[in-house]
Amino acid sequence: MSLPPEFHDIAKRVNNWGRWGSDDERGTLNHITDAVVREAVAEVRSGLRVPLALPLRQDGVQTGVIPGRINPLHTMVQINQEIFGPGTVACSDDAVTFGLQAATHWDALTHVSHSGRIYNGRPAATVTAHGGAEFSGIDTTGPVLARGVLLDVARAKGVDRLPGGHAVTPEDLDEAEEFAGVTVRAGDIVLVRTGQIQVYLAGDKPAYGYPSPGLSVRTPEWFHARDVAAVANDTLTFEIFPPEFEELWLPVHALDLVEMGMLQGQNWNLEALSTACAEAARHAFLLSAMPEPFVGATGTPVAPVAVL
Amino acid sequence: MSLPPEFHDIAKRVNNWGRWGSDDERGTLNHITDAVVREAVAEVRSGLRVPLALPLRQDGVQTGVIPGRINPLHTMVQINQEIFGPGTVACSDDAVTFGLQAATHWDALTHVSHSGRIYNGRPAATVTAHGGAEFSGIDTTGPVLARGVLLDVARAKGVDRLPGGHAVTPEDLDEAEEFAGVTVRAGDIVLVRTGQIQVYLAGDKPAYGYPSPGLSVRTPEWFHARDVAAVANDTLTFEIFPPEFEELWLPVHALDLVEMGMLQGQNWNLEALSTACAEAARHAFLLSAMPEPFVGATGTPVAPVAVL
Amino acid sequence: MSLPPEFHDIAKRVNNWGRWGSDDERGTLNHITDAVVREAVAEVRSGLRVPLALPLRQDGVQTGVIPGRINPLHTMVQINQEIFGPGTVACSDDAVTFGLQAATHWDALTHVSHSGRIYNGRPAATVTAHGGAEFSGIDTTGPVLARGVLLDVARAKGVDRLPGGHAVTPEDLDEAEEFAGVTVRAGDIVLVRTGQIQVYLAGDKPAYGYPSPGLSVRTPEWFHARDVAAVANDTLTFEIFPPEFEELWLPVHALDLVEMGMLQGQNWNLEALSTACAEAARHAFLLSAMPEPFVGATGTPVAPVAVL
Amino acid sequence: MSLPPEFHDIAKRVNNWGRWGSDDERGTLNHITDAVVREAVAEVRSGLRVPLALPLRQDGVQTGVIPGRINPLHTMVQINQEIFGPGTVACSDDAVTFGLQAATHWDALTHVSHSGRIYNGRPAATVTAHGGAEFSGIDTTGPVLARGVLLDVARAKGVDRLPGGHAVTPEDLDEAEEFAGVTVRAGDIVLVRTGQIQVYLAGDKPAYGYPSPGLSVRTPEWFHARDVAAVANDTLTFEIFPPEFEELWLPVHALDLVEMGMLQGQNWNLEALSTACAEAARHAFLLSAMPEPFVGATGTPVAPVAVL
Repeated sequence: MSLPPEFHDIAKRVNNWGRWGSDDERGTLNHITDAVVREAVAEVRSGLRVPLALPLRQDGVQTGVIPGRINPLHTMVQINQEIFGPGTVACSDDAVTFGLQAATHWDALTHVSHSGRIYNGRPAATVTAHGGAEFSGIDTTGPVLARGVLLDVARAKGVDRLPGGHAVTPEDLDEAEEFAGVTVRAGDIVLVRTGQIQVYLAGDKPAYGYPSPGLSVRTPEWFHARDVAAVANDTLTFEIFPPEFEELWLPVHALDLVEMGMLQGQNWNLEALSTACAEAARHAFLLSAMPEPFVGATGTPVAPVAVL
Repeated sequence: MSLPPEFHDIAKRVNNWGRWGSDDERGTLNHITDAVVREAVAEVRSGLRVPLALPLRQDGVQTGVIPGRINPLHTMVQINQEIFGPGTVACSDDAVTFGLQAATHWDALTHVSHSGRIYNGRPAATVTAHGGAEFSGIDTTGPVLARGVLLDVARAKGVDRLPGGHAVTPEDLDEAEEFAGVTVRAGDIVLVRTGQIQVYLAGDKPAYGYPSPGLSVRTPEWFHARDVAAVANDTLTFEIFPPEFEELWLPVHALDLVEMGMLQGQNWNLEALSTACAEAARHAFLLSAMPEPFVGATGTPVAPVAVL
Repeated sequence: MSLPPEFHDIAKRVNNWGRWGSDDERGTLNHITDAVVREAVAEVRSGLRVPLALPLRQDGVQTGVIPGRINPLHTMVQINQEIFGPGTVACSDDAVTFGLQAATHWDALTHVSHSGRIYNGRPAATVTAHGGAEFSGIDTTGPVLARGVLLDVARAKGVDRLPGGHAVTPEDLDEAEEFAGVTVRAGDIVLVRTGQIQVYLAGDKPAYGYPSPGLSVRTPEWFHARDVAAVANDTLTFEIFPPEFEELWLPVHALDLVEMGMLQGQNWNLEALSTACAEAARHAFLLSAMPEPFVGATGTPVAPVAVL
Repeated sequence: MSLPPEFHDIAKRVNNWGRWGSDDERGTLNHITDAVVREAVAEVRSGLRVPLALPLRQDGVQTGVIPGRINPLHTMVQINQEIFGPGTVACSDDAVTFGLQAATHWDALTHVSHSGRIYNGRPAATVTAHGGAEFSGIDTTGPVLARGVLLDVARAKGVDRLPGGHAVTPEDLDEAEEFAGVTVRAGDIVLVRTGQIQVYLAGDKPAYGYPSPGLSVRTPEWFHARDVAAVANDTLTFEIFPPEFEELWLPVHALDLVEMGMLQGQNWNLEALSTACAEAARHAFLLSAMPEPFVGATGTPVAPVAVL
């Protein structure tokens, strides 16, 4: 089995290898310039802050289907411990274990490879157990703060959420962009809402993951044409799952992360943001979505906040 | 042994229990209003972003002296795994274990208790191994994004870093505020720079922790008078360590977290920010410092970013 | 709600507090004397070794119903790493995270408390997050190696496995003892087979845990009368679950661990041993079941082996 | 850099690839037959049990020098939690994270590779982050219980412990064997005592690891000639460290694990056993040293017990 010619055709069109130099590890995050940030800040009107992360808890979105990607295990190592003697100030301390891609997260560019390569043409073998990703680890992104644009595909279509088999197409993105009344531009972080996370919030974890609406293999070209900095959505797999084409698994991951070098976010809770944007009749905002700088990591939990 | 009368005197003066209702779990973060955020955004000039987190790595600031507070252990659970068969897209996944207070972090209000109480007068016994903090866990803070003000105590004094035995006093804060040319006001997040983190960055972990400059027991009143939302600095212990008064351990923690209900941040790397502020001749900025919403946790790693 | 008088009546009859001194932390393991071990060794005939542990894997018996008790997460930190340079010997290293009671395990005597007390009348509050169990942690047991006796209740009754609602009674134990042709005596480690683990081995985790056959609240007196050193079986909960008496949860745990001070084992795979004993027509053997000495822990994985 | 011809010469002489078939994953553990076990049991005289594991604690032997190999982190997830309501039986549960080779442990045969191969000529690449070791994981050993023989090199030489630079040679083993008054034979598990663990027990962790006495590159032939089943000792590195020959790192690991397929144990505390054997004037005993069956793991903690 190998990737089909159609995949390689798209790959060629969205490829950014070398665009920011052979040393680059950040890909499309290079689009976030000081000017982009100034314009992002200028979008703030009310000062309302909408957090987009799911709570980090053991009863999170993971079901055990993805090996090793465990929900957060929160444990205590001190509870009201008067470490300096009785009657003194007492401390509580905790420790956690979890998969970096388990909850609301960013994929690092190294999260996937294909044909033995990661972003910028580096060998996939530069990811090892000893130190993780030598290149493009999540600690190399720099600050992720820019203008955010909500493309509320579900609301634009007048539905609560897209059905499981719905591949979000470029035409869907156009429709949502028009509904938003905003033009996506270079350096934007685009949030694509399908409404799928409602399934998890309602308690049905397996159905949240499968079948799921998600981005079509045709969308990377749409993002590439606009020089988007990053894309996140409210699904487990980011792209439609099961995939659009038989035996072509995770093509969007390969195109976004490997070819374009564009950060992807998953399991973002966009429900409150959808409401807030609809009420404000504005779909652009300041977005802060800072990766935790785990050295060599292929992903990170993130606690994004939209400021309207 | 018990806490001295002087401690209880200060405690009475800075106490905020009931100020935002008996149900409140957020303390001084209530000072961050929409208006505060709008004004914070208005501080942005250049769009320059300065990240303030230390890398999350096994060779972090912890030395093993604090039981259970381990530096991040980063492990791989998938490396370029072609989970859907040979020749397909390959995935890398990682997992981590670490102490929530191990690196650049926020203490939740429940991180310490004294006299059997946490913030807002709740019993300390509401922190358990089963679920962690029932109240004021780090997942209850809401977004932490406001105006940041750097009080660069070291630079204001014309030194690279304060000596180990230096307790940062209200007078030092006044001096740094005047140096900054900005008036600290309600809802601000104040970053106090001592320069101590240089010791860690130079490789001497034990000396970074001890002896360390840090905030004096007299500073909580200074922050309380200004209705500051949160305070962070560039030391391991936040307050001067060993303490100013014999046998009075962690009094600042008890006053800030328990009495005032004010979030504290530690191990923030303020070196690049110090330079950037000096170059811009501005010490106020937009600060995003979102907690990761670990449910019931008494702390969280944080990847703060200052936008100048 | 409180424990009923019937419970306290039994508790009084099986109580061993003070029996081995007020300092004792080991309870009925004190029954394992040198003489017991010599006699245990004398039971070996063929030299056949039968291991009794389930594999330690992420797809283990835990379903997430018991908070925090996670199946083993196995991760790699080095894979064929030539740490001393290319062309040298290469190393692979791994790390794990798991609940100590997650798989085939021993409960330490401190695993449960009732009425504020643990074994030997010590306060339950001696178990803290800071260091775990101050007394009777699993590291205090000393070697657990003695004569093992299989009481094959299922086989004695001529069934593959006991039904979910079956409480194993003293009469069942008598019957199995007679079937075994061996007299249980002081210092023995008794393995009670229900066959329930077949349900897990067949892939139905929820049904393995609930409803499950298990020991009746009447069995502690049976073990107490014989001065048994420890008891293990092939179920998730050890005792019948849901319990025999409404609202009386985990009474056998409280009687065995707290009152008698008798080690309990769960999730032991007794299937191969059942066959081996039947074929050998012998149900006594040498049993080695060494706890891993996690300091202050309330349980431990164990890899028991029966030598026939 | 590559392995020198001398290494390959020894490798050829001790190689066991194919000896137990091309499917074999257990190597020299195949020497432990039922007859071996019967004879092991026959060594028991007094019934005295001597445990050989170090306590599993955060303050263990690791210093951070070996990346990812962390000492056990013990945490609580339940403390006296009355999960079925107030006044009921209360439960305490714990979780741990640690490196499998961190404390008293067995190396699995896959723990090292050289020239791209593991034991029995399989590709080293069969160890992956996805599932760990496909072959010869520690879960494949079967029971490890046999006759143990203490070769007390330090005591035979009349010293408390060997100096740091001492490579234990075949001649040293001969001397200790004669001192023991026992002939090492097929299926034995040999414990080689240097006394080095005293350095750790006295509190000097760095000096425990470096410089350390340990087995010479000439010893694998000695063990091979006797068809020993496994070897363990009381050092961090097993073999002398730094190594005997410049730039030839871990040659004994490569010879024992890869070429012979012989299990190695490290950090075994042989101090009490040394005393017990001297007092009993016997150096052979029953040894139970069961691996915890972590699936695909390259090592395991072990709690060995010698029965004299």
